[in-house]
Amino acid sequence: MIYTKHNLDDTIVALATPPGVGAIGVIRLSGKDAITIADSIFHGKKLEKQKTHTAHFGTIRDKAPQPPKGELRHRSPPLGAGGLYVIDEVLATVFVAPRSYTRENVVEFSCHGSPYILQKVIELCLENGARMAQAGEFTLRAFLNGQLDLSQAEAVADLIASSSAASHDLAMQQMRGGFSEKIKILRGQLVNFASLIELELDFGEEDVEFANRHELNTLIFDIQRLIKQLLDSFALGNVLKNGVSTVLAGRPNAGKSTLLNALLDEERAIVSDIAGTTRDTIEEILNIKGVEFRLIDTAGIREATDTIEAMGVQKTMEKVQSSTILVYLFDVIETKIMDVLTDLQKLQRPNLKLIVACNKMDKNPYFDPQWLTDFNNPTIPEYYLGTINPEADYPELDKKQIITLSAKHSMNVPYLKEKLYDLVADGKIQTDNVIVSNARHFEALQKSHQSLDDVLRGLSTGVTTDFVAMDIRRSLHHLGEITGEISTDDLLETIFSKFCIGK
Amino acid sequence: MIYTKHNLDDTIVALATPPGVGAIGVIRLSGKDAITIADSIFHGKKLEKQKTHTAHFGTIRDKAPQPPKGELRHRSPPLGAGGLYVIDEVLATVFVAPRSYTRENVVEFSCHGSPYILQKVIELCLENGARMAQAGEFTLRAFLNGQLDLSQAEAVADLIASSSAASHDLAMQQMRGGFSEKIKILRGQLVNFASLIELELDFGEEDVEFANRHELNTLIFDIQRLIKQLLDSFALGNVLKNGVSTVLAGRPNAGKSTLLNALLDEERAIVSDIAGTTRDTIEEILNIKGVEFRLIDTAGIREATDTIEAMGVQKTMEKVQSSTILVYLFDVIETKIMDVLTDLQKLQRPNLKLIVACNKMDKNPYFDPQWLTDFNNPTIPEYYLGTINPEADYPELDKKQIITLSAKHSMNVPYLKEKLYDLVADGKIQTDNVIVSNARHFEALQKSHQSLDDVLRGLSTGVTTDFVAMDIRRSLHHLGEITGEISTDDLLETIFSKFCIGK
Repeated sequence: MIYTKHNLDDTIVALATPPGVGAIGVIRLSGKDAITIADSIFHGKKLEKQKTHTAHFGTIRDKAPQPPKGELRHRSPPLGAGGLYVIDEVLATVFVAPRSYTRENVVEFSCHGSPYILQKVIELCLENGARMAQAGEFTLRAFLNGQLDLSQAEAVADLIASSSAASHDLAMQQMRGGFSEKIKILRGQLVNFASLIELELDFGEEDVEFANRHELNTLIFDIQRLIKQLLDSFALGNVLKNGVSTVLAGRPNAGKSTLLNALLDEERAIVSDIAGTTRDTIEEILNIKGVEFRLIDTAGIREATDTIEAMGVQKTMEKVQSSTILVYLFDVIETKIMDVLTDLQKLQRPNLKLIVACNKMDKNPYFDPQWLTDFNNPTIPEYYLGTINPEADYPELDKKQIITLSAKHSMNVPYLKEKLYDLVADGKIQTDNVIVSNARHFEALQKSHQSLDDVLRGLSTGVTTDFVAMDIRRSLHHLGEITGEISTDDLLETIFSKFCIGK
Repeated sequence: MIYTKHNLDDTIVALATPPGVGAIGVIRLSGKDAITIADSIFHGKKLEKQKTHTAHFGTIRDKAPQPPKGELRHRSPPLGAGGLYVIDEVLATVFVAPRSYTRENVVEFSCHGSPYILQKVIELCLENGARMAQAGEFTLRAFLNGQLDLSQAEAVADLIASSSAASHDLAMQQMRGGFSEKIKILRGQLVNFASLIELELDFGEEDVEFANRHELNTLIFDIQRLIKQLLDSFALGNVLKNGVSTVLAGRPNAGKSTLLNALLDEERAIVSDIAGTTRDTIEEILNIKGVEFRLIDTAGIREATDTIEAMGVQKTMEKVQSSTILVYLFDVIETKIMDVLTDLQKLQRPNLKLIVACNKMDKNPYFDPQWLTDFNNPTIPEYYLGTINPEADYPELDKKQIITLSAKHSMNVPYLKEKLYDLVADGKIQTDNVIVSNARHFEALQKSHQSLDDVLRGLSTGVTTDFVAMDIRRSLHHLGEITGEISTDDLLETIFSKFCIGK
């Protein structure tokens, strides 16, 4: 199917590097006239005559300075330049179709990274016949020209947006083929069966059976097994891609800020190494072994009075509602056990992963300075627990969910991180399993699974062949949507409009 | 002279594109091991065996994921990748020494523009033997390896920072050789004379004269003529490079804000076309035919009461003191002529370029709607002037300095722009003259001119040859400082530390 919104015969141009001042900025031209347009502004070797994948030094020149709009006199002639006006000294790299990202002719100009120059060079490309690329149009062309399938194209955007090892790995795996290869093979086999079944329809009343029903059944089971695996991986995939929302809650003076700082301490220094990674200030990002935890502090609530109502359980509840993990923190000496239990009862909800952190262990009368160096203590001796006896007081609470802390001294903070990671990963990241992280793929897989159920039901109850054929077609459609073998303009528009311009 | 602070045998690496998320990001490696280091992380063709100026598709791979510092368990194995961990699919462009920007071996990795990936790739380069480049170190190496002279290297930084046509043209001219070529030739001739004169010294008492004194005189006159030209161009060069500071002053309700908006109206849309050009909010940038005017509004003052003292002439004066142009605006109907004259007397200072704008001409009883379409009226008929008779009331004021306006209707605003441009350019930009815009060059030229004066004085008063030789040497030294034939570590440090990293 052809994506009709943009004219794909046009040659497009865009800035491919981030905006702003840098040592260099790269402008990318793609389309059948890319090299011709480049030649009309590039002075050096004739790019038309160059081999693919070669870089050439030269200058970008403007014909004659134009009078600015609305100005009365012409702009002053170029300083020093003889006749032609030198915009920049650049390196032009030529990629001859089909050996380029888009499989079209591509020229990349590596310019000095001045916004003024980059804008000028883009303007010159436009004046010479290119048009501005739409968001994602380079990758759209790569898809339409068969360089990438749709799920791989989507992974390019994810890859650029990835900010943790886990989200990067997911996107990279998807971009390099991931599960779409497997789906394509199984889909190919199913297409085969569909043709045979439709052939049967052509023979109408003759009651022939070209498609072996038993083999069809087996194939559908195989496909459903894969789909089931992929569907199951989505919860994890989503978490790896988008991070794990983790609420930190607790009464005033439970030590939430101290814990937040202790958790983020080393991480911050690492993140600030490279600019441009700064996040929304509402949430703090904690990276544990490549998985991002979005720590949601309920600080605003904390500052109210200390009655349970004023603590704003309602607001905390809202945050907990959309979160994966709740870390409930309390002062192990000062807080009454009944208050802890009430809080937990109010905050608890099904599927919420809970960690109860008994903080300020350094104030424990039994406190032993040795604990401070004991940074990974998974056991909770009774005498650690101050006023708390979890098994007796709160039998629903698994002992494994309780952790003792001294946030102030970072005691057991590394262990808390381990626990957070385990709650999410739980050994699942260790496997080589393919993981689905894209909501669109998840939906298509679900629909496809359903249609396959219909096929199976049809086969077992002996509905007429035309119904079976229809269900198989529907299932093929949904599978094809993932890789883009089936795509609509709207779908492509939705996917590619989220890309940045220049990609 | 060798710049000893950094080890130039090292291979250096840095992000060359602006930080942040974009379609692509470019990482640059330079040094004798650049290609070897690139090969150790790049999987594809062996880069070592590739020709210069060729681009190659491949992957960047990490050996085995390392446990993050302070973590207890190893990071989970790579998802999907077999053994080696794929960081990114990249394009590697190889430049073999001396055919590169630095004249060293250079490899540029064009990666997906994710900060996570870019950081990872840089880390891998560091692990494999590169070190982080210092600010400006690529260009420093280009200079030390003879690719650029010092004034050209300085122009690279100016070029990247250029945000207007005029500043761009200046930097481009300087980068492409500009006046440094001329200086080098004249300096070469002077070196010749210096040698001859020093040869005379070797013959001590013999009273021989190898250096023709008449020719030496002529040469020095030639050099001084060029230097004088360059020195004279500095005021303009400085203005073109840094913009023209222009104070807008006037009493409350004179219409300053309206004028500011009228001046900036069309300009703003143009500037906001490309991100990253946003400026300090204190000053507004007005671009007139490629020259930047930094409009300094004295708005804070305006809001006070309307006595001349409360208007804060003091504060306005401070701004006027460091500015090139003052646009004094008044309400042509409401303002008393005496107040205008008092203000002007207080604000005036030597060398200040003044424009007196009689605003609100639309309220003039003689107002003719035709004036609104008459956007370029250089003459000021008597009846335009409301209460003002400039020639009688303020004889020091040239009639050409007075302009009538209706900022509200944009009447004569284009003419005001013309006037602003003429005050600065005054035909000077029209010439093909080389222009000095760098304060360091200006200083070196001044000192060199002085030493040449000393030589001339010495020659005419017949001081001993050794003194003449010394003055020539001093002059050579200062000329050499411009192009970098003479440079010290401190000088290089000062120049290159202002560069961005990656250039």
